[in-house]
Amino acid sequence: MTQVDHTRMANAIRGLAMDAVEKAKSGHPGLPMGAADIATVLFTQFLKYDAANPAWPDRDRFILSAGHGSMLLYALLYLTGNSEMTLDQLKHFRQLGSLTPGHPENFHTKGVETTTGPLGQGLATSVGMALAERMLAAEFGKKIVDHHTYVLCSDGDLMEGVSQEAIALAGHWKLNKLIVLYDDNGISIDGPTSISDSVDQVKRFKSAGWAAELIDGQDQHAIAAAITRAKKSNKPSLIACKTTIGYGAPTKAGTAKAHGEALGAEELKGAKEKLGISLEPFSVPDDVLQAWRAAGSRGVAARKEWETRFGELSNRKQSEFDRRLRHERPASLAKAIKAHKKSLLETPQNIASRKSSESVIDAIAEAMPLEFVAGSADLTGSNNNKAKTAVDFSVKMPKGRFIHYGIREHGMAAALNGIFLHGGFAPNGATFLCFTDYARPAMRLAALMGTGVVYVMTHDSIGLGEDGPTHQPVEHLAALRAIPNMRVFRPCDAIEVTECWDLALNRIDGPTVLVLSRQNLPQLRTSTPNDTPCSHGAYELVAAQGEAKVSFFASGSEVQIAVDAQKQLAERGIASRVVSVPALELLLSQPADRQQAIIGNAPVKVAIEAAVRWGWDAVIGRDGEFIGMHGFGASAPAKDLFKHFGITAEAAVNAALKRLG
Amino acid sequence: MTQVDHTRMANAIRGLAMDAVEKAKSGHPGLPMGAADIATVLFTQFLKYDAANPAWPDRDRFILSAGHGSMLLYALLYLTGNSEMTLDQLKHFRQLGSLTPGHPENFHTKGVETTTGPLGQGLATSVGMALAERMLAAEFGKKIVDHHTYVLCSDGDLMEGVSQEAIALAGHWKLNKLIVLYDDNGISIDGPTSISDSVDQVKRFKSAGWAAELIDGQDQHAIAAAITRAKKSNKPSLIACKTTIGYGAPTKAGTAKAHGEALGAEELKGAKEKLGISLEPFSVPDDVLQAWRAAGSRGVAARKEWETRFGELSNRKQSEFDRRLRHERPASLAKAIKAHKKSLLETPQNIASRKSSESVIDAIAEAMPLEFVAGSADLTGSNNNKAKTAVDFSVKMPKGRFIHYGIREHGMAAALNGIFLHGGFAPNGATFLCFTDYARPAMRLAALMGTGVVYVMTHDSIGLGEDGPTHQPVEHLAALRAIPNMRVFRPCDAIEVTECWDLALNRIDGPTVLVLSRQNLPQLRTSTPNDTPCSHGAYELVAAQGEAKVSFFASGSEVQIAVDAQKQLAERGIASRVVSVPALELLLSQPADRQQAIIGNAPVKVAIEAAVRWGWDAVIGRDGEFIGMHGFGASAPAKDLFKHFGITAEAAVNAALKRLG
Repeated sequence: MTQVDHTRMANAIRGLAMDAVEKAKSGHPGLPMGAADIATVLFTQFLKYDAANPAWPDRDRFILSAGHGSMLLYALLYLTGNSEMTLDQLKHFRQLGSLTPGHPENFHTKGVETTTGPLGQGLATSVGMALAERMLAAEFGKKIVDHHTYVLCSDGDLMEGVSQEAIALAGHWKLNKLIVLYDDNGISIDGPTSISDSVDQVKRFKSAGWAAELIDGQDQHAIAAAITRAKKSNKPSLIACKTTIGYGAPTKAGTAKAHGEALGAEELKGAKEKLGISLEPFSVPDDVLQAWRAAGSRGVAARKEWETRFGELSNRKQSEFDRRLRHERPASLAKAIKAHKKSLLETPQNIASRKSSESVIDAIAEAMPLEFVAGSADLTGSNNNKAKTAVDFSVKMPKGRFIHYGIREHGMAAALNGIFLHGGFAPNGATFLCFTDYARPAMRLAALMGTGVVYVMTHDSIGLGEDGPTHQPVEHLAALRAIPNMRVFRPCDAIEVTECWDLALNRIDGPTVLVLSRQNLPQLRTSTPNDTPCSHGAYELVAAQGEAKVSFFASGSEVQIAVDAQKQLAERGIASRVVSVPALELLLSQPADRQQAIIGNAPVKVAIEAAVRWGWDAVIGRDGEFIGMHGFGASAPAKDLFKHFGITAEAAVNAALKRLG
Repeated sequence: MTQVDHTRMANAIRGLAMDAVEKAKSGHPGLPMGAADIATVLFTQFLKYDAANPAWPDRDRFILSAGHGSMLLYALLYLTGNSEMTLDQLKHFRQLGSLTPGHPENFHTKGVETTTGPLGQGLATSVGMALAERMLAAEFGKKIVDHHTYVLCSDGDLMEGVSQEAIALAGHWKLNKLIVLYDDNGISIDGPTSISDSVDQVKRFKSAGWAAELIDGQDQHAIAAAITRAKKSNKPSLIACKTTIGYGAPTKAGTAKAHGEALGAEELKGAKEKLGISLEPFSVPDDVLQAWRAAGSRGVAARKEWETRFGELSNRKQSEFDRRLRHERPASLAKAIKAHKKSLLETPQNIASRKSSESVIDAIAEAMPLEFVAGSADLTGSNNNKAKTAVDFSVKMPKGRFIHYGIREHGMAAALNGIFLHGGFAPNGATFLCFTDYARPAMRLAALMGTGVVYVMTHDSIGLGEDGPTHQPVEHLAALRAIPNMRVFRPCDAIEVTECWDLALNRIDGPTVLVLSRQNLPQLRTSTPNDTPCSHGAYELVAAQGEAKVSFFASGSEVQIAVDAQKQLAERGIASRVVSVPALELLLSQPADRQQAIIGNAPVKVAIEAAVRWGWDAVIGRDGEFIGMHGFGASAPAKDLFKHFGITAEAAVNAALKRLG
């Protein structure tokens, strides 16, 4: 391709980005204008991409980590011929219902690989994608899985701490098919990055085991040469591309004024004149559009060749691959869960829920050994989510399915999103419940995108004991339950744990937190009905003997306290019932009549949870009794703490008696 | 000091750590044993420290970022002669009520500079301390403020992403009095760090502008030489100290088995024999204890000299310094707030609460120009928390009091803790409310420690508009309100903003989130009573004309909707009242009678908040009406979104009418 062609193609991106932001009077023209050369080189010369089939399994992934530059991506989708991304969509940039929201949303717009905007997330998610590629290739072979993950990121992505967790993991795993193009424009919202940053990114990435170099990001030949080198490296690659933000804008280029607002009519006109673009909004010359469309079908041959190779697989292999990518669970899983429940009924287990979770995991891993990908942020022995049969993933063991993430909760959670989005795996990651705080931005994105990932969060209350208040969650249940589309299960015994794992793995349109105890719990459930009681969020675990005067509601380790309280009331001749609430927010989303049936009509309602009250008023009412935490915990053995903070059957009984008068 | 002395002193730490963990049957012996040489060199040769006066203003700070190694710190406090840290306290390690909790708690144990345990926090907090030292020295001179901040950190601290944000800031600011000793023992809980890490930390720190070197961390002379070099550097320094975890333990040293559990009787005996320590638990030879006590008073002379120099300051300067360190606000602040309220009553401002906050900040900054330290994570122009008179802090301008943190919300929040803990400043930091998720671990620590920091969180709902759901908070109010000791104010107009700023700055025992709108808000308040209505969390803003049939509850930008709804009902002849709820969790912590008086007895209760319902049932009850968000937002202009999601006066009126039947 000649220099003229490249420049005109890149300018088509610039023109569309300027026009869309101008029409919306909102958005970020600077990045698309500065990074247009990078994107043009990538899409016209490297990306294995078929615009008509944006979900083709062996496509190269392109992640716009700098999600605020969304018009770059939308322009590329339009120019390359994505069937849904019409010019009309670009004209409705940032408007209600359009396919062109302010930041790219993969659940909303075809061809968008992941949702970005919160900085650092795209980069960290891409590490999970590249990891999934490596793992799936180890299983199905390079003929079926052999693609690159390209990321375009910004200064902001690299300032966010999660970027360090992500690049450390990618470097450690030598994810050489991960290539990060850093739009090094030296400008952030507040001004030149030099007002807040002095990091040498090339040296930083090298220290994490990456190949890294600095190039001129407006020079198409330099970009192409660097990508070519990166593809040959045995390490992940950073290409720091020195660019000019708002490239072409006569007065705003190279300044923060080009970053996050419309250029304004005059500046836009000047930019178009300087770049030689038609002043007519949203116009792309026919020959340029044709060249882009040709680029959009560059991958057709590769896709067809791949389809031929895929067709040569055995039928069994083909359907296995398809099933895996659809996130459909194997029949063996349901069988394993059923058998496990049966064994629990026969031989009850009075163990910590993290331990009963471990025994479920052993059964799951046997049913889906290469599909179930577990990992921990350096608490493997405490989180108990490594199956007996699990093998550690490493560079030398890409078929390993247990991941040691190190002490990187945030990087882990983002990687889980990437593994799921890539397809082929049911990923879970583990740490202490308290440290969901570290992972929260990626967990929120999981809920927003609807990735079916599982978080195994152990040590779920003051039951953690001696580590003290820095490690004892009290507000985390409420904080997680408040996230839309986040399922939070806190099972009370080994059977509920099994049901919740089943529900979690079969939930492929949103994430699930499994909240598990450090301390031992008695097995309270005596039956395993087919309708899976946990699926309604709550259910009557022990009915009242006679008309209930009191309803006890509890989750997890406090359900045994409710059962004890019920017994103590019965000794006084007072009938009460126990409702187990493994998922409070799920209960509150049930139809009104079912909610009412579960909550019941007993005049006194007592909730027991070793956490803050926040949220429980929806069940027990403003005048309900709450036995739980009213502040932070303390450092002491668990049994001392439950007593100290008054989370006991006696306290629950007294609260009920007080109300009964 | 001779080799024998040093080793016996270091072994005293090792012995106490082993014994305490053994007695508690819980804890982390490995780090204290491995890092004992580092700590001994630091405390006996460098640290400007007077054990009898652990809060002396110009002391060197010592931060145990690797908080799990708390016995190292407790042993040091005991050995050096901290009056409260008795041998008995060590014998009650990790027991209820002792001064020796699992992880160091500064609000609980004198001589502990900050609460650590959640990894990365100590390191990131220390950057704020070193920054405060620099800023305060610029103001009061080196004769009064001239100390170092020493940090002992672990592998885990450096794996956490927040460490990157922290070291990037420290490097950029050339905080050369920050010296980080990295206990590079190559072991984490899951095993050798090599299973999850390949980062070259020395190169990494150098890339961030630090001086960095690798030394033998069991060699006292190497340690002393490295600290001496670090003190001379014009950059912050990393000293990576190669150590053996559990140094001295015969079979467990150098392995993960020494990390996080008691050694066991046999291993402990072997370790003591190997190290030449008495087998009697908690025994320290007299001469060794005396040597340590001498080390504990090494700083007495320096303290006395400092007191002399301090006494030479003018009385005004002395009392200013003392006041600042006590976090007592100047009288000028109250005057400024009062004047600002008066001007608002005279000239109402119908502007965004982020803008009215800006005008309050202008007034505050005038009242306490060098004390009020603001900053933003690269959203200065959007957060509006930079006063007109504010000057940017930089290496060349250490009297600057506005900090550009870059896109580092977590590093910013941790630095705020450090600035407050150091003393001398009222710090605040700003970003979009949605990105509190990134800062949450440090915000939680603020609440736990009770640091009086302020978070200026703008763009507080779908009112943010076009940036879309990745940037629109819906669950964040609930998630923040659920944190114990976290105050969350969402003011509805310029007068509430002023009251909330006043309350926030005078809250020195816990953090405050100020939640502010992007969009304009009418000034609704018409009076400024002396009892500051916001201080109760909620109050009746507009009374009913007649007996109220409906109570509307709302916060922030939705209070105007409630006022509109009230008017619409009045047109139908239905009396209703409007309760402004700037701080829901504060309302719920009021005495029952006050709560009841505020909530009132109107038969219909309607809450309006552009966020999830979570928490509101405590006010409106399970059968109350809620007008708000039921899931994530969308990308569109704000006015379209409020309509689309049905957060309107009409919807509130219809909900009330439905209930009234």
